[in-house]
Amino acid sequence: MNDNPKFAVIGGGSWATAIVKMLSENLTDIAWYMRNENAIEEIKLNYHNPNYLSSVELDVEKLSITNNVNEAITNADYIVFAIPSAFLSQELESLTESLENKVIISAIKGIIPETSLIVGEHFHQTYNVPYDNIAVLTGPCHAEEVALERLSYLTIACKNKEYAEVIENCLGSHYIRVKLTDDIVGAEYAAMLKNIYAIACGIAHGLGYGDNFQALLMSNAIREMKKFIKKVHKMKRNINNSAYLGDLLVTGYSLFSRNRMFGNMIGKGYTVKSAQMEMNMIAEGYYATKSAYELNKKYGAKTPIINAVYDILYNGGNPKKAFRKLTEKLD
Amino acid sequence: MNDNPKFAVIGGGSWATAIVKMLSENLTDIAWYMRNENAIEEIKLNYHNPNYLSSVELDVEKLSITNNVNEAITNADYIVFAIPSAFLSQELESLTESLENKVIISAIKGIIPETSLIVGEHFHQTYNVPYDNIAVLTGPCHAEEVALERLSYLTIACKNKEYAEVIENCLGSHYIRVKLTDDIVGAEYAAMLKNIYAIACGIAHGLGYGDNFQALLMSNAIREMKKFIKKVHKMKRNINNSAYLGDLLVTGYSLFSRNRMFGNMIGKGYTVKSAQMEMNMIAEGYYATKSAYELNKKYGAKTPIINAVYDILYNGGNPKKAFRKLTEKLD
Repeated sequence: MNDNPKFAVIGGGSWATAIVKMLSENLTDIAWYMRNENAIEEIKLNYHNPNYLSSVELDVEKLSITNNVNEAITNADYIVFAIPSAFLSQELESLTESLENKVIISAIKGIIPETSLIVGEHFHQTYNVPYDNIAVLTGPCHAEEVALERLSYLTIACKNKEYAEVIENCLGSHYIRVKLTDDIVGAEYAAMLKNIYAIACGIAHGLGYGDNFQALLMSNAIREMKKFIKKVHKMKRNINNSAYLGDLLVTGYSLFSRNRMFGNMIGKGYTVKSAQMEMNMIAEGYYATKSAYELNKKYGAKTPIINAVYDILYNGGNPKKAFRKLTEKLD
Repeated sequence: MNDNPKFAVIGGGSWATAIVKMLSENLTDIAWYMRNENAIEEIKLNYHNPNYLSSVELDVEKLSITNNVNEAITNADYIVFAIPSAFLSQELESLTESLENKVIISAIKGIIPETSLIVGEHFHQTYNVPYDNIAVLTGPCHAEEVALERLSYLTIACKNKEYAEVIENCLGSHYIRVKLTDDIVGAEYAAMLKNIYAIACGIAHGLGYGDNFQALLMSNAIREMKKFIKKVHKMKRNINNSAYLGDLLVTGYSLFSRNRMFGNMIGKGYTVKSAQMEMNMIAEGYYATKSAYELNKKYGAKTPIINAVYDILYNGGNPKKAFRKLTEKLD
């Protein structure tokens, strides 16, 4: 399947659009599924996704865009999933095609709420995808900068080296460098946890803490992340590699980050509900906070930052008080 | 000397002013040396340092401000040096007081050009200060946020626990938390190296690289820093502690940072000379780059980022080309 690999991209948001753009640099025939029929029509007509990364001119001749997920998947060898974890099950309800012989590339950052599993495990357990066929795509990479063709590095985590190299070749370009690792579990957890820390950064900012505190928070966050991931899957990994620390930094420091924005509103006094309504989208980290907190009951890692965010988002904890308590625990 | 410790602060810049403010929260009699007589007059008259952190109202009754360095030092038990490393020797030319029985607190980030030593070693060798009497004060902490009383954490590195605790008590307040460590060498090198990495961030920004690349650069920088410091002084340290990673982040991501600003101008095409003239001040990292590069000839750590910055600042290397080459070496 490697000579002329067939890719499908599942999702119509910013990250999916960025991935389609990256693949279009190398491939001539990409299947693209999105639910929104109007968006599909608009893309075909105007070569731009009207809702996300709308500055990107899409090479429509290379794209087979459809709102039928089976149609997108049927001929694909490699399927990139780039939708919020909370919507995955729903989007795949109508799936009749088998995924067993496909390579599944998860660009999803989070835990699937229905199964409380990280994406790789979820695909393995729910769709019988062998672990060897599962890859995880992480940053540090904001879709917005892919749109601008600013040099960015991606990380592909995959046990199977052959698949990893195909993915590398299909995504890489003059503005995208791809790095490979076999730490699928670590990459997935890092991608999930960083969103919680981005919410924490946002809350701190909303409460009026400054850059000095943010740097301290980040330095504590990466240590907390290391402890958490080590409990989940112990292996030799350098937590300061770009897939972990780099990805944390780009999310925590970015004004593009939805999670940071969501946290900022919470810090400023919005309730969770009103912040979500105001943003008109779901911050992945909202679900990740619950998942990580619940999971950690089993693992018992010391996670004061996650606990504080959980307390605020799910227990009605007062952000100001929760963060004052948190500052006593950081160093 | 601990019941009513006498502090002197040497320097009239932002960081010195911030330190005077922090000490004023706890002490009633602080000696403050600065060279600029006009500034001294203005402070006495208007309670504000006219040139730096001028929003801070200084508690002038607690301050003995002088432009005679011996006068400032003579009764002090603890002397905080907060001047650019390049000016230290010059400022101390008229020193007749002995420093041997004083506790020297270095808030200087860099290497003393005349001796190519880090500040602690320099004080030890040049002024016979025992290592036990040397402390290093680092961040993550921008003076500008001290002025705003935004919660910030300082790190004091000192072998002598008793002195460390005195310093902790004199600097700590409702907006300052102080953490202690005995890794003087690591803290000093980190404080120096981070300025080089901040220049690198600035150059990248000036060249048009975005946030994705900056996160990658930071993740590489902390790994490079770890290797460098390990070669200089091997001990068990967590490079992700706030004195190392936190300090790097606050400098690399800050728009306040002179080093980042200097790098940004270089990236935009200014020559080193014109950038320095335009800024009307010296970026510590400029000297640090040369020192670190020279030192590393002995240590042989792998430091592609420092090398690239050195090439640009001292060899007339083209920033665009040097960074294109650098991007091949990062991961």
